[in-house]
Amino acid sequence: MANDKKLVKSITSRDEDFAQWFTDICLKAELVDYSTVKGFMFVRPYGYAIWENIQKCLDRRFKATGHVNMALPLLIPESLLQKEKDHVEGFAPEVAWIDFGGKEKLEERMCVRPTSEVLFCDHWKNILQSYRQLPFLYNQWCSVVRWEKTTRPFLRGREFWWNEGHTLHETAEQAKAETLQQLETYADFLETELMVPVIRGQKTESEKFAGAEATYTVEAMMHDGKALQSGTSHYFGDGFTKAFDITFADRNNGISHPFQTSWGMSTRVIGALIMCHGDDEGLVLPPAVAPYQLVIIPVAQHKEGVLEKANELKERLEKLYRIKLDDSENSPGWKFSEYEMKGVPVRLEIGPKDIEKNQCVLVRRDTREKLFVSLDNLEEELANLYKSLEQDLYNRAKENLVTRTVELEKMEEIITQADKNDGFIKSHWCGSAECEQAMKDQAGLSSRCMPFGEQGTKGVCPVCGKETETVVVWGKAY
Amino acid sequence: MANDKKLVKSITSRDEDFAQWFTDICLKAELVDYSTVKGFMFVRPYGYAIWENIQKCLDRRFKATGHVNMALPLLIPESLLQKEKDHVEGFAPEVAWIDFGGKEKLEERMCVRPTSEVLFCDHWKNILQSYRQLPFLYNQWCSVVRWEKTTRPFLRGREFWWNEGHTLHETAEQAKAETLQQLETYADFLETELMVPVIRGQKTESEKFAGAEATYTVEAMMHDGKALQSGTSHYFGDGFTKAFDITFADRNNGISHPFQTSWGMSTRVIGALIMCHGDDEGLVLPPAVAPYQLVIIPVAQHKEGVLEKANELKERLEKLYRIKLDDSENSPGWKFSEYEMKGVPVRLEIGPKDIEKNQCVLVRRDTREKLFVSLDNLEEELANLYKSLEQDLYNRAKENLVTRTVELEKMEEIITQADKNDGFIKSHWCGSAECEQAMKDQAGLSSRCMPFGEQGTKGVCPVCGKETETVVVWGKAY
Repeated sequence: MANDKKLVKSITSRDEDFAQWFTDICLKAELVDYSTVKGFMFVRPYGYAIWENIQKCLDRRFKATGHVNMALPLLIPESLLQKEKDHVEGFAPEVAWIDFGGKEKLEERMCVRPTSEVLFCDHWKNILQSYRQLPFLYNQWCSVVRWEKTTRPFLRGREFWWNEGHTLHETAEQAKAETLQQLETYADFLETELMVPVIRGQKTESEKFAGAEATYTVEAMMHDGKALQSGTSHYFGDGFTKAFDITFADRNNGISHPFQTSWGMSTRVIGALIMCHGDDEGLVLPPAVAPYQLVIIPVAQHKEGVLEKANELKERLEKLYRIKLDDSENSPGWKFSEYEMKGVPVRLEIGPKDIEKNQCVLVRRDTREKLFVSLDNLEEELANLYKSLEQDLYNRAKENLVTRTVELEKMEEIITQADKNDGFIKSHWCGSAECEQAMKDQAGLSSRCMPFGEQGTKGVCPVCGKETETVVVWGKAY
Repeated sequence: MANDKKLVKSITSRDEDFAQWFTDICLKAELVDYSTVKGFMFVRPYGYAIWENIQKCLDRRFKATGHVNMALPLLIPESLLQKEKDHVEGFAPEVAWIDFGGKEKLEERMCVRPTSEVLFCDHWKNILQSYRQLPFLYNQWCSVVRWEKTTRPFLRGREFWWNEGHTLHETAEQAKAETLQQLETYADFLETELMVPVIRGQKTESEKFAGAEATYTVEAMMHDGKALQSGTSHYFGDGFTKAFDITFADRNNGISHPFQTSWGMSTRVIGALIMCHGDDEGLVLPPAVAPYQLVIIPVAQHKEGVLEKANELKERLEKLYRIKLDDSENSPGWKFSEYEMKGVPVRLEIGPKDIEKNQCVLVRRDTREKLFVSLDNLEEELANLYKSLEQDLYNRAKENLVTRTVELEKMEEIITQADKNDGFIKSHWCGSAECEQAMKDQAGLSSRCMPFGEQGTKGVCPVCGKETETVVVWGKAY
């Protein structure tokens, strides 16, 4: 029991210090290890297994809508990065530059890709000839490097892992439709598999991606009321394709520039998972991406028949779920804490008395509610348990999002609210960068997005008082 | 028909110019695109799909033997690379160096990982405490950068994609067993899924991995008689763990250094696939890793019922195989050439006459043999066809390997043979680096390996005449 306590005690509570609680989970649940490579992280096997599951879920969705994977070079020559003006302005200040290959000084320095728009354009220029080839629906799974000053596991690092989708289309309409389709793919994945409710919307001019005509985002709210941008999708128009002189023979026997999109979701969403569902006992994982969906813990495992029964249940259930059977010498109590820390959604306990009664104990990770279940109905009971666990995870997160979002009209009210409570504030906004900056300076709030389906009502900008029909969600963000 | 001819004509024949034939296939089968990033390649969707299938096959094998995936930093600080002396000597001359992060000059320069031994050691030092945690059985899927001077698609590039397995063990025996187990994993994958026969053996001192105590290799022979090193597995002893001061509390209440291995297989094996099985019509892919295992081509597809039947067959068969149905407007002849170029193992043709007779035509890619098959027995016929196609691919490659391997004793004979024919030459060797170098200088041959199961017979070194029991396979290598 000494061990149990130590393990549980070793994480800070959320209310005491949310930032420390987050770091504690990252380390104690063995998601990451700090690195002597400053600003970079080691994603440990348990953390990486979550990412592998996220990749599988997303990859399935991408492929179902006709996207294919490919791999592009890791490095970008400086002249290539410079081809699109806004893009290079946005990224040049934060890339890692290579000056030497072995002992030979490079004629032109190269950067490690911070994102791959210019590489895709370089490729497309080579291969595109006719409208018959379009659309190009490509995706890449990789890591990228951006030289951030302050870093935190999953949330902000000099390297992160992501998918970057890049597509090319005959018409602007098709590209715009793709941009929104892929945003919805992310939103649906977040809401139905990660059980993280999001606000879908468009970024303001000052928050959009360098070189994009429009950037769309899905914004999630963490348990502490702060925002986490969880996925973005960009519409580029033909800005890059003109800069790179990418053309094709169009339907009307003319020569046209195609229209472009890109969209990405990264290991940041693991940060969202932690801060959306986690509690003072540790991580709480939604079943869709949990490395183990069920952990089986034999009780009094030295007693005759217990391990056999535990193994029998494992074999029976592993056709349906990812399962870990822990038959190590650690005490059951120690194991309970360990898998609670690791966020395994459901624990199955089986001991001699349970076997006598042809039952087992199921314990939900989120509520820690115990269920005594007949072994005859195990599959059915588990299916129901996962369903209600998922629904409850979503509902709790949704309730947090709703109750912490307030609509305010007056600047003083906004300042007071932002000072007192973290959360989202919805207000009208005139559309000017100056008023957006004033919101940052005076209330410490950044624009998260102009939410879909909430535009077009009349109101006034709380900063300048101008009449407007634009609504913005403001917040403090990770 | 004009189109057909153009497509077929557009690749050089193997006999005419093997190197050009290889490049033609890489481009025409749309495996890669050359890049303005010199020495780097774009792996196009069709080529990447082959790599994804290779990854799946290997990942399944790694996980079945208890290995888990993780992700490590892309960059290595210079001081970390320098910790193991032989290792840094081997790799420092060929790494890409980063001097700037954004506008800020780095205090210490960093290189893009050429391999990750030192990063794993850095991590293990943090997390290892007791023998109870061992073994660590880790793997990483990623790309690495080595600043090669001359590059060719898949065979040698400044960036390649691979798996790098890294493990840590309590005892030297366990680490040695792991090294050989993983070599055999590669050999078995090559021989039973890629249908590429290999020679298993140990590298000589001068050919082993920088910092390893022993390097093992699987060597394949290409159609032209040259060797391609297809996978390697290294035993490190405790060299790195001592250099990094990695210790654990051992079973005897002492403090010990653990023993280490690493092993890798890369996108080079796609080069092996091409050069082992390909022919003058293009790529020939083994079913296990073919992006499409079957292409269905409707004949006279505008006729009533043809497309319906083709779709019906697709639905029926796609539970068993990865299938492409090409119902585009291109002529059947054009499609035949295209999928032959892409190496799809079996083509299914279905037209109005076939439908009348309740049959279809199956064409094997390798022999182009036609089979008229009743639709009633399709599943069975296909299963048999894939089995014999696989066996034949293997047998042809094996025959090439056997007939092009000669055993020679005398230096003049070796020089004459190496001059006339590419292929493997087996001879005794005294074990000295001087005689190995002489073989390079005089016969243009490098040692491929000391093959398993062929050591211990008496003979003399063809260079110095010394008596020895060591046998080496020599060859020219990609």
